[in-house]
Amino acid sequence: MMKVHNFSAGPAILPATVMQEAAQGVLDLNHSGLSILEISHRSKDFTAIIEEAEALIRELYRIPDTYAVLFLSGGASTQFFMVPMNILANDETAAYADTGSWSSKAIKEAKAFGTIEVVASSKADNYTYIPKGYSVPEGARYLHITTNNTIFGTQYHALPETDTPLVADMSSDFLSGPIDISKFDVIYAGAQKNLGPAGVTVVILKKDLLNRTGRELPSMLNYQTHVEGASLYNTPPVFPIYVSMLTLRWIKEQGGLQAVKAHNQHKSDLLYQEIDRNPLFRGTARAEDRSQMNVTFLLHDPSREEAFLKLCKSKGISGIKGHRSVGGFRASIYNAMPVESVQVLIDAMQEFAGQS
Amino acid sequence: MMKVHNFSAGPAILPATVMQEAAQGVLDLNHSGLSILEISHRSKDFTAIIEEAEALIRELYRIPDTYAVLFLSGGASTQFFMVPMNILANDETAAYADTGSWSSKAIKEAKAFGTIEVVASSKADNYTYIPKGYSVPEGARYLHITTNNTIFGTQYHALPETDTPLVADMSSDFLSGPIDISKFDVIYAGAQKNLGPAGVTVVILKKDLLNRTGRELPSMLNYQTHVEGASLYNTPPVFPIYVSMLTLRWIKEQGGLQAVKAHNQHKSDLLYQEIDRNPLFRGTARAEDRSQMNVTFLLHDPSREEAFLKLCKSKGISGIKGHRSVGGFRASIYNAMPVESVQVLIDAMQEFAGQS
Repeated sequence: MMKVHNFSAGPAILPATVMQEAAQGVLDLNHSGLSILEISHRSKDFTAIIEEAEALIRELYRIPDTYAVLFLSGGASTQFFMVPMNILANDETAAYADTGSWSSKAIKEAKAFGTIEVVASSKADNYTYIPKGYSVPEGARYLHITTNNTIFGTQYHALPETDTPLVADMSSDFLSGPIDISKFDVIYAGAQKNLGPAGVTVVILKKDLLNRTGRELPSMLNYQTHVEGASLYNTPPVFPIYVSMLTLRWIKEQGGLQAVKAHNQHKSDLLYQEIDRNPLFRGTARAEDRSQMNVTFLLHDPSREEAFLKLCKSKGISGIKGHRSVGGFRASIYNAMPVESVQVLIDAMQEFAGQS
Repeated sequence: MMKVHNFSAGPAILPATVMQEAAQGVLDLNHSGLSILEISHRSKDFTAIIEEAEALIRELYRIPDTYAVLFLSGGASTQFFMVPMNILANDETAAYADTGSWSSKAIKEAKAFGTIEVVASSKADNYTYIPKGYSVPEGARYLHITTNNTIFGTQYHALPETDTPLVADMSSDFLSGPIDISKFDVIYAGAQKNLGPAGVTVVILKKDLLNRTGRELPSMLNYQTHVEGASLYNTPPVFPIYVSMLTLRWIKEQGGLQAVKAHNQHKSDLLYQEIDRNPLFRGTARAEDRSQMNVTFLLHDPSREEAFLKLCKSKGISGIKGHRSVGGFRASIYNAMPVESVQVLIDAMQEFAGQS
């Protein structure tokens, strides 16, 4: 069978070794005679898994004990309201930078819990860039950013220059490189890009933010519940956490986040160079804000899109069609994407231009 | 290696064939060259999976189109507040029957959204029975019941006699037998007993309940969002839904819910007969309310518990220790538990009594 090169935007490619280990865990976890799917979340085997997952995130990102690391469910979409519900009082203001569809949803959901000021937006230019040089209102509780914009192919390559604590939706570039954790009050990320399969959401938050608004919350929506329960207040998504732990081990084996970052830089450089060089194609995002995760590009002649998709398909290239908001193509090249697959795409672009 | 007999209360045993198919899907789904862990939730392959899962639940339970069938996340613990948040107005009353720890949590979480009347409770007797013959206040919006009480080993074998619509937490006996869907406004169930691995929650609800309270809700907490999005408003827990679909196929292959129910009756009869016959043991739940899913029992001489657990371990019997609220032993014998494993436990009980 032809090898499939999976450029899907998410759920997305995971390391091949992780897939094999995950399948083995479904059949027989640690030679226990039991499947990862049928063991108690309070068993020794699973306790070891979730503790290792947390320890690896702390080690990779150098997260101090003043932060909690939680494994929740409900996706980033649930964090859109859980963050302000938990840390923004009714009479406080939070600043939001609007850099795409997901930012917009975060803004919409936050409005029920305080004053939300959209301090910057690239919406008028179809989100082709990351706004910079704006100011954040004095006293703003936090500035919310979406560090990578999956649909529009943009990414923050430097954090906003502000003393306001940051809250970041890192769903689509979580664990793609090192960060300075001290700048953040909260980081949240759905797993289904660089971390694991869909079904678990990581939340990293400063512990001193707990219980500060006086709001009465359902237990499951209160971060305090999950900090006290060490993410085991209720039955957590056991298998997604298991696979995430396996991927975290793989990231460490790659040499950690500096090494992963260098690999991502190399892969995205190769692909953007081809986009800029090839006479048929052009990128959609401003060059300085181009994402290393999601590479969005168009044909100058859109009538040839179907032909290029057909060529891609014949090469085993999958998931390359762009989101309808941008059109054209999107190559998602997360951590686990091998450079060989990026090269297959580049070769297809060259063949399409009659150059190979 | 010795076969392990998994009596875990949940996450719990799933059919052996489902485990094998699930592992295969992790390696290569439908000969696509892609893993179920790396495909888009909007791909054709996954759309077919979630549609088949919904269709099978509708077929097995004979659910008409007037109900929605949703695949959500957050567990039953999230439904404890989502149900009243969505269907109980501030000036309305809901009745709750308190039959165990999970009922108590449901009551606690509901109180923020209306008047909650606890119309019956077996708490004073450590939840050893299901209260009956109580009345529900006229005009109560719904009566909430927990159809099976995992910890205390009790189960409703007949629904309460009332015209009030029922809301049921069926987490631990979902799909264990037929039900009369017309009695219910809402049914919810975490997957991790009879349906699938942890990480997905099924919600079945009457569509005419949508948007009736006037409450402004976060998008993710509004059932309407998920009905409109066909459970794909955000990225759903893809793998737990996949495995659930495989288990649903297996239930249908067994002959559907009547056949499954007969098998559950047979297994639980065998085990309760031994508990009642064996001079060393006694059951904890009132006989008429005994659960067919979770069989709770004690040694007359608690000082011999460790010795019995040791014997069980030597026979490959796993997960038999009782919950601390009840003590002793709990044998969870969900749909997928073969009668052969129940017999291994019975043999161990007889051996322990010096009778084999």
